[in-house]
Amino acid sequence: MKLSNKTVERVCRVFGYLKVLEDKGIAFVSSLDLAKAIGATESTVRKDISILELTGFSRKGYDVMLLKKELGVKLQLNKKRKACIVGLGRLGTALLDYEKFQEDGFEIVAGFDASINKIERINTVIDVFAVDDLENVVAQRKIELGIIAVPAQAAQGIAYKLVKSGVKGVLNFSPVKLIVPKNVMYLDMDFTSALRSIAARMAVC
Amino acid sequence: MKLSNKTVERVCRVFGYLKVLEDKGIAFVSSLDLAKAIGATESTVRKDISILELTGFSRKGYDVMLLKKELGVKLQLNKKRKACIVGLGRLGTALLDYEKFQEDGFEIVAGFDASINKIERINTVIDVFAVDDLENVVAQRKIELGIIAVPAQAAQGIAYKLVKSGVKGVLNFSPVKLIVPKNVMYLDMDFTSALRSIAARMAVC
Repeated sequence: MKLSNKTVERVCRVFGYLKVLEDKGIAFVSSLDLAKAIGATESTVRKDISILELTGFSRKGYDVMLLKKELGVKLQLNKKRKACIVGLGRLGTALLDYEKFQEDGFEIVAGFDASINKIERINTVIDVFAVDDLENVVAQRKIELGIIAVPAQAAQGIAYKLVKSGVKGVLNFSPVKLIVPKNVMYLDMDFTSALRSIAARMAVC
Repeated sequence: MKLSNKTVERVCRVFGYLKVLEDKGIAFVSSLDLAKAIGATESTVRKDISILELTGFSRKGYDVMLLKKELGVKLQLNKKRKACIVGLGRLGTALLDYEKFQEDGFEIVAGFDASINKIERINTVIDVFAVDDLENVVAQRKIELGIIAVPAQAAQGIAYKLVKSGVKGVLNFSPVKLIVPKNVMYLDMDFTSALRSIAARMAVC
């Protein structure tokens, strides 16, 4: 099943919204509600759901639990995935203890930093290593996701190392765009772009 | 000038890419290059640029410096904007010192935390206050943007306070969706959604 990045992004947002509905005890949802919640048109949402060959539609709307379960299976969102964090500055250590990762099936199994001093002093239940050990640890522990929280000038080098060690997905918190091979999934968390987009909307809306 | 959120988001990404090109000393760029860089079609990029009534197009492509300057003026991206950070845990303090905000015209003029103890011990050049002072400080300093980095259960209350004090844009780092009035611009930085979208693309691509 080949899906465009945009479709995957949308159905991931649908999945997140279904989790919210499930927590609230809501049993059915209309495609219009789904569309509104994720900021897409109703026909797009319907098309996405039909591409994924999902069932669970009745007169009352989509069955929240069923649709969430099916989506989870199709996108393997229920699979536990091992991740590591590289760069244990304030942002990196904040991410190390970000409990929601765990709840959502992401297991942070290692942290790395260039400073041995920092590695020795850090207070966390997660195993931390010198960045020189990155390639060994990532390969041995079969880590699939790398989260980059190092300074801009070190980020591309870390991305290369992660990919070389077998990581298949990279989430980048450094403020530079990184180059990774096409078969590695990549996403930027660019705080400045986010602020800029809010400011621009303030100016023109 | 009324623009859709999607148009604003795209032209903000165009602006970010033009900055990169400018830093590299590249003088001209084609609409196809712009389209590729931001992940849109060429015709969409051309339409966005024409809606914004931007000039600077020649046989060699768009003039990078000119287009960036015009975009900056239209979207008021060159305007300095005052921001504050609420919640000075590890993530909040990391954001307090995130130098790229400054470079891009966002001035963090205050930090807030519920713990007086933390306020007293924190090591930063930015003014920090107890969260009880939030409404006064935001109003007095004419802060336009609020960055929320408090735990989930406190986030909605902080959003209300920020809006009541005159903030026009909210960037939310807490892992819950917040409700703000329609005239307040709002964006989530949801780390788990980001990881989930990478993992889903790993599964289906």
